[in-house]
Amino acid sequence: MGLVTISDLQAAADRIKGAAVRTPLLRFDDGLWLKPESLQPVGAFKIRGAYNALARLPEDVRARGVVAYSSGNHAQAVAYAAKLFGVPAVIVVPDDTPRVKVDATLSHGAEVVQVPMAQREVRAAELVAERGATLIPPFDHPDVIAGQGTIGLEVITDKPDVATVLVPVSGGGLISGVATAVKALSPATRVVGVEPELAGDAAESLRVGTLIRWPAGDRARTIADGLRAEPSELTFEHMRAYVDDIVTVSEEQIGAAVGVLARRARLVVEPSGAVTVAAYLARRSEWGSAGGTVAVLSGGNVDPEVFTRYL
Amino acid sequence: MGLVTISDLQAAADRIKGAAVRTPLLRFDDGLWLKPESLQPVGAFKIRGAYNALARLPEDVRARGVVAYSSGNHAQAVAYAAKLFGVPAVIVVPDDTPRVKVDATLSHGAEVVQVPMAQREVRAAELVAERGATLIPPFDHPDVIAGQGTIGLEVITDKPDVATVLVPVSGGGLISGVATAVKALSPATRVVGVEPELAGDAAESLRVGTLIRWPAGDRARTIADGLRAEPSELTFEHMRAYVDDIVTVSEEQIGAAVGVLARRARLVVEPSGAVTVAAYLARRSEWGSAGGTVAVLSGGNVDPEVFTRYL
Repeated sequence: MGLVTISDLQAAADRIKGAAVRTPLLRFDDGLWLKPESLQPVGAFKIRGAYNALARLPEDVRARGVVAYSSGNHAQAVAYAAKLFGVPAVIVVPDDTPRVKVDATLSHGAEVVQVPMAQREVRAAELVAERGATLIPPFDHPDVIAGQGTIGLEVITDKPDVATVLVPVSGGGLISGVATAVKALSPATRVVGVEPELAGDAAESLRVGTLIRWPAGDRARTIADGLRAEPSELTFEHMRAYVDDIVTVSEEQIGAAVGVLARRARLVVEPSGAVTVAAYLARRSEWGSAGGTVAVLSGGNVDPEVFTRYL
Repeated sequence: MGLVTISDLQAAADRIKGAAVRTPLLRFDDGLWLKPESLQPVGAFKIRGAYNALARLPEDVRARGVVAYSSGNHAQAVAYAAKLFGVPAVIVVPDDTPRVKVDATLSHGAEVVQVPMAQREVRAAELVAERGATLIPPFDHPDVIAGQGTIGLEVITDKPDVATVLVPVSGGGLISGVATAVKALSPATRVVGVEPELAGDAAESLRVGTLIRWPAGDRARTIADGLRAEPSELTFEHMRAYVDDIVTVSEEQIGAAVGVLARRARLVVEPSGAVTVAAYLARRSEWGSAGGTVAVLSGGNVDPEVFTRYL
């Protein structure tokens, strides 16, 4: 299986200029810097991969529109990227999706199709066939991985001496791209993934060297609702090649990190985005050393009630 | 009275590189972009002016240390800048300053001297005399104004076609610097100050053309605790020269803007920092036009209880 290359990432960086924010590194303490992807237009890093994937489509193909099935940040990102290109987007969501998320997707000008959870993939495939549209997957695609990897390029540009980069892991698109960048530009830098203990399938898989599947019901237990997906063959190959370790954090540690980020870094970060800081705070003595650590904060879309609980 | 010049600002920009974050512009809606100074190391733009003022001191003078009297963001900024230069800082605060603010100042390695409110200036002057230290004023100084003005340079660099720049007004150091930059680089761009109605002394002064003093007790009524100071002769001269208008917002509008920024921009912004967005939301039809508006968010240091009230 072909892995994404550093030149794929560099080309993606040129494409996404103007669509994604060039986020700064923010100093948190003597050992930790934050990469706040919560500041992206849709509140998450997903705009990088979605925009790059749309940009890579031939113009006549893109004009027929794009389809995504997701109720989360990826759906917002595909809808927003399609708006920027002026092409139609259809987002297929489960029929129990909260109204606020449906409204957010509609606000980007996308069409929203609500179906029972089990029919999402089938309905998306039908839409692709009916309209000649293109499916934009949330992580299992080289163009999506390359877009997410632009975060790694920026981290190494801004802090070439960084010792450790911490990255949330769900389907693995983000860490696949970031690790590709880091290992190409700064091979001595460690790339460490972070998962909730309650959705620690990628950590277990990397440890044993083969993809271990956890039941979706198990992965759904964590408050970190953006980290409930599981890696694909493609993203797992990237992890095996480039990721040094994957660690896990407890639900309590995740909630505490959301509160610390609000009070000390003045950032609204969703639980999925705060797992990296949770891991740092638990292992500061190990990672706070020379060179320091960068924690990728993947997103900031959190319900106000959940957020307030941790303040 | 000599006004700060664009070359003073450009020199300041070179000095503060590495000490202040180069904050990005964040798109809020079709008409508004945010300049999030809440992301600075001390949670406020104040680091720009404080660092520039320390950098301008001769090395032997700086080595004797710096003094500030303030319980707010300026104190944190002076303490933080002194730490970066490795020189002593003494911060004189009223004896009723909340413990959390004293601790924050101590955490930057500064010495904190607590005195009755009325004795702050006298005690600071004594410390300057006793130690040969230098007083760093919060706004009434050309080097401080020049540092704050680097925000204006960045805004025009990132969005040269901006129609309106909105800036919070208290002592006036921030808007003096920003307006100097904007009018030098983009004379057609409007610079509009924003004050709370309950501390609208600068708005009244600009309207009548001379400094009007409001009693401190009146100015203290607003929740925007960073906007209770009053302009100096120096900052008022800059405003008369370069500021197009100053508008006011109600307490209700300020609180609503804090909530909107948390929910939609994923930023923790203090009431003083949110007045610009409050003004935009009240006048969107006027300012949301071609070229768009940039709102400077001056800081993010807000008590969690106050913040939660507006979520």
